[in-house]
Amino acid sequence: MTGETDHGRTTAHQGSRIDAYVDRYAARATGMVASEVRALFSVASRPEVVSLAGGMPYVTALPLDVVGELVADLVAQRGPVALQYGSGQGDPHLREQICEVMRLEGIEANADDVVVTVGSQQALDLITRIFIDPGDVVLAEGPSYVGALGTFAAYQASVVHVPMDDEGLIPAALAETIESLSRAGRRVKFLYTIPTFQNPAGVTLNEQRRREVLEICNRARVLVVEDNPYGLLGFDGEPLRALRADDPDGVVYLGSFSKTLAPGFRVGWALAPHAIRDKLVLAMESAVLSHSSFAQLAVGRYLETQPWREQIKSFRELYRERCEAMLSSLEMLMPPGCTWTKPAGGFFVWLTLPPGLDSKALLPRAVAERVAFVPGTGFYADAQGAQYMRLSYCYPQPDRIREGVRRLAGVIEQEMQLRDTFGTGSVPDHGGVDTPGPDLA
Amino acid sequence: MTGETDHGRTTAHQGSRIDAYVDRYAARATGMVASEVRALFSVASRPEVVSLAGGMPYVTALPLDVVGELVADLVAQRGPVALQYGSGQGDPHLREQICEVMRLEGIEANADDVVVTVGSQQALDLITRIFIDPGDVVLAEGPSYVGALGTFAAYQASVVHVPMDDEGLIPAALAETIESLSRAGRRVKFLYTIPTFQNPAGVTLNEQRRREVLEICNRARVLVVEDNPYGLLGFDGEPLRALRADDPDGVVYLGSFSKTLAPGFRVGWALAPHAIRDKLVLAMESAVLSHSSFAQLAVGRYLETQPWREQIKSFRELYRERCEAMLSSLEMLMPPGCTWTKPAGGFFVWLTLPPGLDSKALLPRAVAERVAFVPGTGFYADAQGAQYMRLSYCYPQPDRIREGVRRLAGVIEQEMQLRDTFGTGSVPDHGGVDTPGPDLA
Repeated sequence: MTGETDHGRTTAHQGSRIDAYVDRYAARATGMVASEVRALFSVASRPEVVSLAGGMPYVTALPLDVVGELVADLVAQRGPVALQYGSGQGDPHLREQICEVMRLEGIEANADDVVVTVGSQQALDLITRIFIDPGDVVLAEGPSYVGALGTFAAYQASVVHVPMDDEGLIPAALAETIESLSRAGRRVKFLYTIPTFQNPAGVTLNEQRRREVLEICNRARVLVVEDNPYGLLGFDGEPLRALRADDPDGVVYLGSFSKTLAPGFRVGWALAPHAIRDKLVLAMESAVLSHSSFAQLAVGRYLETQPWREQIKSFRELYRERCEAMLSSLEMLMPPGCTWTKPAGGFFVWLTLPPGLDSKALLPRAVAERVAFVPGTGFYADAQGAQYMRLSYCYPQPDRIREGVRRLAGVIEQEMQLRDTFGTGSVPDHGGVDTPGPDLA
Repeated sequence: MTGETDHGRTTAHQGSRIDAYVDRYAARATGMVASEVRALFSVASRPEVVSLAGGMPYVTALPLDVVGELVADLVAQRGPVALQYGSGQGDPHLREQICEVMRLEGIEANADDVVVTVGSQQALDLITRIFIDPGDVVLAEGPSYVGALGTFAAYQASVVHVPMDDEGLIPAALAETIESLSRAGRRVKFLYTIPTFQNPAGVTLNEQRRREVLEICNRARVLVVEDNPYGLLGFDGEPLRALRADDPDGVVYLGSFSKTLAPGFRVGWALAPHAIRDKLVLAMESAVLSHSSFAQLAVGRYLETQPWREQIKSFRELYRERCEAMLSSLEMLMPPGCTWTKPAGGFFVWLTLPPGLDSKALLPRAVAERVAFVPGTGFYADAQGAQYMRLSYCYPQPDRIREGVRRLAGVIEQEMQLRDTFGTGSVPDHGGVDTPGPDLA
């Protein structure tokens, strides 16, 4: 990705120029710091490196000729609308279509409660903007999506992690966390959760726990922000029922076409209780006036004229094959002491290193061996996570995934030998929250 | 516009539903209130009403067949890039092209200092995000762009207006305002200015004053944010030299393709001193990850393959003709006591009503007579401006503009008779800052 090269450059500049504005930034800007691992990712984007780092969907699988025709027809038939400003809330017809998509997850919603956003990342930004005063608490799974943590940091939220296991968020731990925060007089504004095929952990909240999580949050009057970009990308069976399906008043649901169609249009959405929806539209308008009419109408036309359910099915098959390639080669090649999650959908495997190993310290060595991953520390707000790494199987071909895992296993083995000889692996070096690049999405 | 209908609905809903989250919003959200005039604008969008309210460019003038071919070719030739995530800073080639566009205004810039944004509205949002703590002062012309005032309010900035005359911002008043704020211990973070064909006033800062404004701000260490969406849309002669051209370290320049090409792609940009650019990229990523690759590459392809300078020339001619239609009919039809600005480019005329008349109170009557405008109060942060209105000539055909001015003149005359009979016109009703809809851009 070109962005990675730019980030490399950024780092070089930062060292060599003085910032004349350093005493004039807002307090929130001090939390905006470029990650040190970015420079490494600029190396990792070279073709000889197998990147298990990025979360980029495999858009090459789309029928490009069809998409080309579709956007040309759009301009021919609705050019003056597609090229003009649109409403802050988003195209009304697209909002109807979004309700149809959400129906697959058991959600019954009115198009009037949907706001179209610049990817679901913007929905997250706007929700944070309207709810968070500096110091307010956001609950999030530990680990959680790096882009969400970056947004929470930008609004000076205090993120408190709630532990997960292979069945997702642990309800008892959630209840306990809320209670102890409440005893300490802290204000919990919302729970941010990715219940299905979680990023980065690859685990899914089971049905029993879904009910419990909703009950706990309802009782404590904690809003639930359900982020669900991967919900339709399960490998088997029917889509899971969304949290929002069972609690229209207590849940803000975030969705996206980035994984079911393509991220290049940047079309996501929020479905929110009506009063919150009103605020979201006002926040949207002050942030960007309105999203691109062209991008919205292109997505709408795709949904209207193409067999989108079939396309999602073929994406599911593609990612299932890649996930199997990763899991089977991990099984075959990883040294003892490594463990990992077994996703039933989505893009990611979460790997736990043997004791004494540090994933961030290990990254430069891995890149030298032509394989990249994302160190676990990026997925926590509090510098924990050094024993984990996120491995993505969404983008590389299956044979490249196997080769990447082989290289990574070699690096981990060497590191274990170092540890056994010297008592520790490479020296760790942890910063705080890294504001993510789009390459880490 | 569909958005206007939605806003109408919003107002209805707000009255009838209880907001269960009312005690949980952030402090900044309390400033986000929908404008009362929105409901009126939903009526104003009916075809029988001549709208002199909106700032929508006349995109129908674009060669739609060419644009259709261009986006189809884009998908065929660069589909996997156009449909994928891009870098947070924006497409590198587009950033080079943006530098070429800015060269027309005397700006010499490096593509590495450009950040592509979701319209220049987002650039404004991000600049405010990185500089403004609650209570910090932003200086702005009085009147100023309604969308900027909405953004400043969303970050709890304190806006202080600096007066203008027909030659733009008054330098002596600027110096005095900065000095008195400094004596009061207030922190001025930046001056927000639209020096060329200002929105809403239609006036342009003269050359002598450009130098003075830069000097004053430099001396006081006040950053200048130069918003320049209309700079290339002057009716005669060469484009004016941008403020940024003479002060690369003290000015953040905001640009947009919304008026020179089309707003439907939502492609704008910021050109910033390097340290600020670094922060802008991080803020961009936490806000939306990245802008639409598709939209960026479409604009890039347009600039590469089409005679864009010629297209701008034909836009200039079109808007000049409409401006002349408006100015000549104002001259012919407006009752004595009304005065207005004479723009040399851009989209807007700023009209001053005779004493005792109130533009917001006058709007419902005008809409009943099938003509709409934007009341002056929306362009001030402090509820002044009742004696002004903004009239746009960018969208309606010349004969519709003449008809609209005729209707408006009739309404003003009636209102003057009311005033002369009862001592006042319709009863005024002023709120605070209205968060603008895209229709007011």
